[in-house]
Amino acid sequence: MPDPAAPLSVATLVLRAKEREIEAVRELANRANLVDVVGQVIQALQRERGASSIYLASRGQRFADTRRTLVDEARAVEQRLREVFAAESQHAQGATARTLSLMAWALLGLDALVALRAQIERQAMPAPDAVAAYSHLIAGLIELVFHVADASAVPSVSRLLVAMLHLVQAQEEAGQERAVGALLYASGVGAEAHQQRVVHLIEAQERSLQVFAEFAEPALRARWDAQQLQPGVARLERLRRTLCTARPGAALDSNLSDTWFNVCTERIDDLWQLQVKLVKRLREDCAARILEAQQDLQDSKGLLRRLRDNPPPRTHVVDRFFDDAIAPQAVPARGAGPAPAPAESNTLLDLLQAQAARLAAMEAELDTVRRTLNERKVIERAKGMLMARLGMTEQAAFRALQKTSMDQNRRLLDVAEATLSLPDFAFAQLAAQAGQHTR
Amino acid sequence: MPDPAAPLSVATLVLRAKEREIEAVRELANRANLVDVVGQVIQALQRERGASSIYLASRGQRFADTRRTLVDEARAVEQRLREVFAAESQHAQGATARTLSLMAWALLGLDALVALRAQIERQAMPAPDAVAAYSHLIAGLIELVFHVADASAVPSVSRLLVAMLHLVQAQEEAGQERAVGALLYASGVGAEAHQQRVVHLIEAQERSLQVFAEFAEPALRARWDAQQLQPGVARLERLRRTLCTARPGAALDSNLSDTWFNVCTERIDDLWQLQVKLVKRLREDCAARILEAQQDLQDSKGLLRRLRDNPPPRTHVVDRFFDDAIAPQAVPARGAGPAPAPAESNTLLDLLQAQAARLAAMEAELDTVRRTLNERKVIERAKGMLMARLGMTEQAAFRALQKTSMDQNRRLLDVAEATLSLPDFAFAQLAAQAGQHTR
Repeated sequence: MPDPAAPLSVATLVLRAKEREIEAVRELANRANLVDVVGQVIQALQRERGASSIYLASRGQRFADTRRTLVDEARAVEQRLREVFAAESQHAQGATARTLSLMAWALLGLDALVALRAQIERQAMPAPDAVAAYSHLIAGLIELVFHVADASAVPSVSRLLVAMLHLVQAQEEAGQERAVGALLYASGVGAEAHQQRVVHLIEAQERSLQVFAEFAEPALRARWDAQQLQPGVARLERLRRTLCTARPGAALDSNLSDTWFNVCTERIDDLWQLQVKLVKRLREDCAARILEAQQDLQDSKGLLRRLRDNPPPRTHVVDRFFDDAIAPQAVPARGAGPAPAPAESNTLLDLLQAQAARLAAMEAELDTVRRTLNERKVIERAKGMLMARLGMTEQAAFRALQKTSMDQNRRLLDVAEATLSLPDFAFAQLAAQAGQHTR
Repeated sequence: MPDPAAPLSVATLVLRAKEREIEAVRELANRANLVDVVGQVIQALQRERGASSIYLASRGQRFADTRRTLVDEARAVEQRLREVFAAESQHAQGATARTLSLMAWALLGLDALVALRAQIERQAMPAPDAVAAYSHLIAGLIELVFHVADASAVPSVSRLLVAMLHLVQAQEEAGQERAVGALLYASGVGAEAHQQRVVHLIEAQERSLQVFAEFAEPALRARWDAQQLQPGVARLERLRRTLCTARPGAALDSNLSDTWFNVCTERIDDLWQLQVKLVKRLREDCAARILEAQQDLQDSKGLLRRLRDNPPPRTHVVDRFFDDAIAPQAVPARGAGPAPAPAESNTLLDLLQAQAARLAAMEAELDTVRRTLNERKVIERAKGMLMARLGMTEQAAFRALQKTSMDQNRRLLDVAEATLSLPDFAFAQLAAQAGQHTR
C-alpha cells in the first residue's frame, strides 16, 4: 500500500497500469464464463424450442416426454445463468450499464418462460408462436454475447469471442433452418415465403461461419474444414436443394421430414462440438493472459527495486526522455523482431516505453477485431431503421440492403451507413414506393 | 443493500444498470477535471517554451526574468496535475491501463523538466533543442487528452472532449507556428525547410479547428466565427503570407519578429479563451448528466415500488415480452418524438425497453463521435509506420499520405488504412524509391 501523503512516483503509476491490466483480464475471464453459460442456455432453449414445436404441431401426439426432459435440462442451465448474472451484478468493477440492461432483459425472458411453458404444456398456443417466442429470447441472449465481445480489451480474447459470437449465431440460424424446413417437409407442399426464409437462413449461416473461420485459431478452423467434408453435409445439401428448388404448391415428400430433422440436428451438434472446444480455448487463453500479466508485474517490480538501489544519473533520464525515440504513441514496426527481453530494458524509461508500445499494439489489434463487430452493428442498425420506418420484415430489410449493395457495386457496410444517414424526407418517399410495389 | 442469498430480480438488475450509469458519469467528471488541468499545464509549458527559446536564442539577453516567472507559474499547475494523477491512480474504478501508462509517461516528463530547466538556465543547450524537448512533452499530454476522449461513454461529454482535444491541438500547432515564424523573422532571411514547416502547421491548425467547430456546441462555434473576423486575424494572415511566399534566401524584415510574436500570441490567447469556456461547458454537462441519471434512478425506484405493490397479471408480461415489439437491440426511430414520459411507462417491461432504447441510441451516437477519433488514430498510425519504416519526418509522412489521397482521389482515411495493411516487401520497395528521390 503506497503512502497516500507521498508524492506519486512514475514507478507507482507503471505498476498500477500493470495491475489494472491484470484486473481487466480477470474481469474478462468472468465475462468468458458468462458467455459459456449463455451459450449453454441458448443450446438448451434451441432443443426445447424444437421439441415444443413438434409437440404443438402434432397436437400433443409426439415428443411430450422428450419435451419435458428438455425443459428440465434447460431449467438446470437457466439456474446457473441466474447465478452468474447475480455474481456479475454484485461485482464492483463488473459489467457496464449496457451489459446489465441486456442481462435484465434476458432475465425477464427467463422469468416469462414459466408461463410460456405452461401454455405450451396445455397446447394453448400455435406452434409458430411458440417458436417465435423462444427465438426472440435467444436473439436477446446472442445480443448479450455480442456486447461482451465488443467490450473486451484483450485482442486474443476478443478474437475468440468474435469467433464464438458468430458460431452461436450460425447455430441459431441452423436451428431456425431446421424448424422451417421440418415444417415445410411435414406439410408436404412447397410454400414460397418459407422457402425464401430457408434460403435466407442458409446464406446467413454461411456469412456467420465465414467470420467464425476468420477469427477462430487454425486448429479449430482445420477441424471445421474437415467436418465440412463428412457425408452428412452432402445429405444436408441434397435435402436443402430439394426444399429450395421445389415450385411453390408442388408436392414435397413428407416422409423426408424426420430425415431432414436428423440431418440438420447432426450439423447443429457438429457446430456445438466446435463451440465446446472454443469455450475451452477461451478459458485457457484468459488464464494464460492472467499468468503472463502477473509474470510481467513481477519482472517490473524486480527491475524497479534494482533501479531504486542503483539509480541511473539524472541527466541520463533527461537526455533520453526528450530524445524523440520515445513517445507514448509509439507504433511498433511490424516484423521488427520480438520485444526486448526484460534483462535488456534497464531503466524506467525502457520499461515505460515497452509498456506503451505493447498497449498501443494491443489497441491497434483490437481496433481491427472491433471493425468486424462494428460492421455487424451498423448493418443491424440499418436493418432496424428500415423495419421501423418502412414496416419491412428483417429478411426484406436485409435483402433491400444487399440488393442495393450489388446493384451499385458498393460494400454492404457503406450502403448500411448511407441508409442510417438518409434524411427523413427520403424515408417518406421510400415508404410511399414500398407501398406501391410490395403491398 | 440487496440480500445476497435472495434470487436476482429483474428490478435489481435494472437499478444496478442505472447506478452503473451514474458511476460512469462520475468517473467521466473526474476525467474532465484531469483534462482541464492537463490543458492548463500544456498552456503553461507553451508559454515557458516560448520564453525559453527567446532566452536561449538571445544568449540570455532577453526574457530572463519573464522566463523565471513563467517557470514558477508552470510549476504551480504541474503540482495540481501531480495531485490529479495521484487521485486517479488510487481510484479503484478509475483509469484504464493505457491511461495510467500515458500518465506515467507524462509524469516522467514532468520529473525530467527539473534538469531541462537547469540546462536552459545556464544556457547549456541550443534553442531548437529546448523547443523540441517541450514540444515532445506537450505531444504526450495531448495524447493523454486523446485517450480520455476516446474512453468516454457519454455522447454529449464525448462531443465536448473531441472539441477540446482538437482545440488543444490547434493551440499547440499555433504555438509551434509562432516559434518557427519568430525564428525565421528574427534570422532576417527565408529558409525553405522552416517555411514549409509553417505552411504545414497552418494547414494542420485549420484541420484541427474544423473538427473543433464540428463538435463544439453552437454558442461556442458562433464565438469562434466572430473571433475570425477581428482585425488581428487580418494582420496575422498578412504576416503569414509574407513569411510563406518569401523566396528562400531572400531578406525578411527582422523588425517584424516582435510583431509576429505578438499577433500570434493574440491568436493563441483567443483560442485559450475558447478553451476556458469549453472546459466550463464540459463541467456543466457532466454535472447535468449526473443529476439527470440520479433523477432517472429515483423515478425508476418509485415505479418499481408501485409495481411491487400492484403487480400486473403474469400473463400480461409474458404476452408482451414475447411480442416482437420489444427487443434489446431496439433502434429508436429518429424524429419519432420524445421518449415516453415516466408516467406512461407503467410496467417493468416498459422501463426496461426505455432503458435499452436509450442505451442503444447512446451507443450509436458514441460510435459516430468515435469515428472522428478513430480516423485520427489510423492516420497517426500510418504516419508512424512511414516514419519508422522509411525514416521519413512526420511532416513528410503526412505529405506522402495527403498526396496519394489527392492523386488517387481517395479519402485520406482509406489511404492510411491501405498503408497500414501494406505487405513488408512493399515497404522495402518504397524505402528504395524514397532513397532515390528524396535523399
